[in-house]
Amino acid sequence: METTTKIGFIGLGTMGKPMAWNLHQAGFDLGVYNRTRKKAKSFKSEGVKVYGSPKKLAKASDVIIMMVTDSDALVDLLMGAKGILSGLQRDAIVINMSTVSRESNLEAADAVQLEKARFVEAPVSGTKKPAEDGTLTVLAGGDKNLVDELDPLFRAMGDTVLYCGELGQATNMKLTINLLLGGMMQVFAEALVFGQKQGLDIDGILENISSGPLQSPLFEIKGQLIKERNFEKNFPVDLLLKDLNLVLDAAQQKQVFLPAVSAVREAVNGTQSLGHGDEDMAAVVKLLEKVSS
Amino acid sequence: METTTKIGFIGLGTMGKPMAWNLHQAGFDLGVYNRTRKKAKSFKSEGVKVYGSPKKLAKASDVIIMMVTDSDALVDLLMGAKGILSGLQRDAIVINMSTVSRESNLEAADAVQLEKARFVEAPVSGTKKPAEDGTLTVLAGGDKNLVDELDPLFRAMGDTVLYCGELGQATNMKLTINLLLGGMMQVFAEALVFGQKQGLDIDGILENISSGPLQSPLFEIKGQLIKERNFEKNFPVDLLLKDLNLVLDAAQQKQVFLPAVSAVREAVNGTQSLGHGDEDMAAVVKLLEKVSS
Amino acid sequence: METTTKIGFIGLGTMGKPMAWNLHQAGFDLGVYNRTRKKAKSFKSEGVKVYGSPKKLAKASDVIIMMVTDSDALVDLLMGAKGILSGLQRDAIVINMSTVSRESNLEAADAVQLEKARFVEAPVSGTKKPAEDGTLTVLAGGDKNLVDELDPLFRAMGDTVLYCGELGQATNMKLTINLLLGGMMQVFAEALVFGQKQGLDIDGILENISSGPLQSPLFEIKGQLIKERNFEKNFPVDLLLKDLNLVLDAAQQKQVFLPAVSAVREAVNGTQSLGHGDEDMAAVVKLLEKVSS
Amino acid sequence: METTTKIGFIGLGTMGKPMAWNLHQAGFDLGVYNRTRKKAKSFKSEGVKVYGSPKKLAKASDVIIMMVTDSDALVDLLMGAKGILSGLQRDAIVINMSTVSRESNLEAADAVQLEKARFVEAPVSGTKKPAEDGTLTVLAGGDKNLVDELDPLFRAMGDTVLYCGELGQATNMKLTINLLLGGMMQVFAEALVFGQKQGLDIDGILENISSGPLQSPLFEIKGQLIKERNFEKNFPVDLLLKDLNLVLDAAQQKQVFLPAVSAVREAVNGTQSLGHGDEDMAAVVKLLEKVSS
Repeated sequence: METTTKIGFIGLGTMGKPMAWNLHQAGFDLGVYNRTRKKAKSFKSEGVKVYGSPKKLAKASDVIIMMVTDSDALVDLLMGAKGILSGLQRDAIVINMSTVSRESNLEAADAVQLEKARFVEAPVSGTKKPAEDGTLTVLAGGDKNLVDELDPLFRAMGDTVLYCGELGQATNMKLTINLLLGGMMQVFAEALVFGQKQGLDIDGILENISSGPLQSPLFEIKGQLIKERNFEKNFPVDLLLKDLNLVLDAAQQKQVFLPAVSAVREAVNGTQSLGHGDEDMAAVVKLLEKVSS
Repeated sequence: METTTKIGFIGLGTMGKPMAWNLHQAGFDLGVYNRTRKKAKSFKSEGVKVYGSPKKLAKASDVIIMMVTDSDALVDLLMGAKGILSGLQRDAIVINMSTVSRESNLEAADAVQLEKARFVEAPVSGTKKPAEDGTLTVLAGGDKNLVDELDPLFRAMGDTVLYCGELGQATNMKLTINLLLGGMMQVFAEALVFGQKQGLDIDGILENISSGPLQSPLFEIKGQLIKERNFEKNFPVDLLLKDLNLVLDAAQQKQVFLPAVSAVREAVNGTQSLGHGDEDMAAVVKLLEKVSS
Repeated sequence: METTTKIGFIGLGTMGKPMAWNLHQAGFDLGVYNRTRKKAKSFKSEGVKVYGSPKKLAKASDVIIMMVTDSDALVDLLMGAKGILSGLQRDAIVINMSTVSRESNLEAADAVQLEKARFVEAPVSGTKKPAEDGTLTVLAGGDKNLVDELDPLFRAMGDTVLYCGELGQATNMKLTINLLLGGMMQVFAEALVFGQKQGLDIDGILENISSGPLQSPLFEIKGQLIKERNFEKNFPVDLLLKDLNLVLDAAQQKQVFLPAVSAVREAVNGTQSLGHGDEDMAAVVKLLEKVSS
Repeated sequence: METTTKIGFIGLGTMGKPMAWNLHQAGFDLGVYNRTRKKAKSFKSEGVKVYGSPKKLAKASDVIIMMVTDSDALVDLLMGAKGILSGLQRDAIVINMSTVSRESNLEAADAVQLEKARFVEAPVSGTKKPAEDGTLTVLAGGDKNLVDELDPLFRAMGDTVLYCGELGQATNMKLTINLLLGGMMQVFAEALVFGQKQGLDIDGILENISSGPLQSPLFEIKGQLIKERNFEKNFPVDLLLKDLNLVLDAAQQKQVFLPAVSAVREAVNGTQSLGHGDEDMAAVVKLLEKVSS
């Protein structure tokens, strides 16, 4: 991957914008496309090419990166009118960095390969701040040589690249991580409510957790937010519930027994039912507080 | 607390022995008692006094530290024939560092105070290694001034001293921590089994967890042990189940709703039912593997 | 509904065959269609018309009853080549007695109404035996007058007709019932395993349940089968799991909290994971037995 | 058991009073004792002997029946000053019909047998109404010949006598039944809330359940009460929670895995946490309604 390689980046949202920016800063020859053109403005003023359609971007790019919201957006931008496929060059590389289902990735790969181009899935772990700092973890699935070839590009956006195996495995890894994320969040919330109901101070509990082997950056961050009663969404309850549903679906397909995660999912569902779906996942503490009062 | 204060240490087990040793190394004027006298041998050869009964130890000590296995041992050594109470000096301080129920601590405190002596509860977080390294976390409950006075002594055994509030609160803190410990262990195990059943390699999963905000010393340790299929007990399933039962009992008394911990407890119970009670708590992974096969 | 009304029945499976037969026995003017023609043989020899396609059946029928396996079959027979829609008469009535999703029923209704015909959903409660005995419970959703008009027809197949409300509500009722079915099955299995592990005899437990307010025909039937270790499928684990997934999906959409059903679903999933998906739902007892051993 | 046998009945509460009355009506030679003497008044006016102490009652009785609230009352009336033991005749029979733990029954039996008398445990299934109607189910544990001998006496109070085995097994049977009771109540409540949130009418749901194989007297009774929002206690949430705790304790001792009952227990705990402990167990519906709103 040389810096003369032409990169086309599609999707300048909360995550995509800083990711694309980091590519530009790293010296890659970047062009961008975004459905809402306004979001591309700051790129244009910095001399980055802004394309009028995915097709035009595809025609001009050796590597196309997609960072979009969901499966529908992926399908539309890829296969729709003036979509990527209509302009895709032979041997070009399409990298899907969006988190969509394993099935959606496999379908996208098939479509891309029919055009004699190549496909890699590369969802990321991390939120807005690591995206800005270029410290995301990139989970890559697909051809190993291809992933290796793309390494310099991934390293412009993240500080860790994890090759997960064949296509689909990066999505499986992402679900594995988010299963753990949801589980940790829930048991942490139960610990905080339990301790406080026993008369302990939240500061004491948090300090204690921080000082021993259970310490985790997640608990540092979420503990502080719960203490401040700040439930502004970072990773919202709705999204966590969606991911846990994907986890249980995948678990059923592969015959995996997940008794605690199943209870976690229902607690997250209860939190959403109480009207906290749009708040940060730390709001799972609210279901416990409501019932324990 | 001066180093001329006479310290009597009762209970030279896996935890107590290195803790007492660290007091000796720190220069405290130490005497010890252990039911099985043999365990005191190495202390004797180093010039530490070894007493023949708790009574004799109590007569000679300003501060008495207890680190015993359970409530029964506590009651026996305190109130039995030739027990501590029969030799306790006025104004002496009894520190219970064993983990027993909040009620047992309160009863012991009453008995000690009837003899015009003072009582502090101070269970510890951490296992054998931190006990040897003097890096335990000491959770202290009781009179704040007294706990402050004892600080140099605690610091010879641990690197963190957390004052938790009145008598009983240190035990509550300990249960809060162990609730989180059990919850994290279970969801971590579910993540590992889920990921592996999807075809992911355990090394990849562990590396991924380590590289992001979910990282935790607990996962480093237990992940390695599960990978090596080493279930030699460190904190056994039986003990975790006992603690989770204490948690649910205490939760019910204070009307706290713990849906995920409840499912975790049942999974730990299932693990014990399968015959893994005497293995390390990491063996919760075996219930999942058995059902998911 | 007069007995001169021409009835077309599509789907002569385990349930459909006896249902159609009961219509014939009740004197209705019946014609049938089945993909596998052989199954229609016994009808032919009794003088019932057997049609070569859904289209031909539709052309000749005032009322068309569908009793098929799933959504795909429903869509195919309705909208496929030589499907019902291609022969449907104006003002004809299509009754879907299959259990498919609420959404599938609504889509089928739209398609039928576009052809100026009418649609009723009418899933049934009950299995093979009640179908043969004409003692099914018919859950009907759609226009009330239409359902009333169809009453004599339903009464030829079942002894209870329950009007559930507008289109989609009969499916909701069916899911409500199957939620309860799965929940009862699971807690019954847990009671049997618990009691037997305490040393009680299964006959004594069953007799005791039968003699008090917890008695239920379900427990009579399933208790006997479990005692005989007869897990030949009547309502299989796979199907129960599918229905419980539909329940939890619908619950999430309407923000309903179902903590016990969530645990039941996971137990059923565990049972399937152990390889019992194709056995009767009474096999949930096997997960408990395996872990409790 | 002849009607000339002298029967002493201790405990004239909600259950005990009608049970004693039925013995009197059946022609047995009855004497009674109750701590609160007032409750014995109606017996006195009917010519039944009323004793001043358990001791006096014991001296005059061949068979002594106890129907008291809990273990403490049992121990006190049996072993306290002027207790049964102080007046117990050689070869007399003590029948404990109260529901207390298996352990309490075994201890009581030991104490009675030391006095050369005999002991039977006989907890009952059923509430106030069946007690009045003489239609209770008597669960008997202990010596089979003795239980057979007592049959006429049991038949005066209940219509079903179930011999459960050696001492302790009747209590195990009772817990098995109450496990099922709690489980059915919870999944029934979840079905009702689910169905109603989908827009179904509670009458329709109840009618549907009544008309099929899931029908149960429990659902008839509790469904009506929930519909009327009548949560006046019959079997209160507090008591159900206590019994489910006993179930999970016993399950753990015998290594039984109860995933759904575990979730049921936590839902009942949540119901109590919300302040409904003193209401009928049908109030479990309130936790679901609160979270689902």
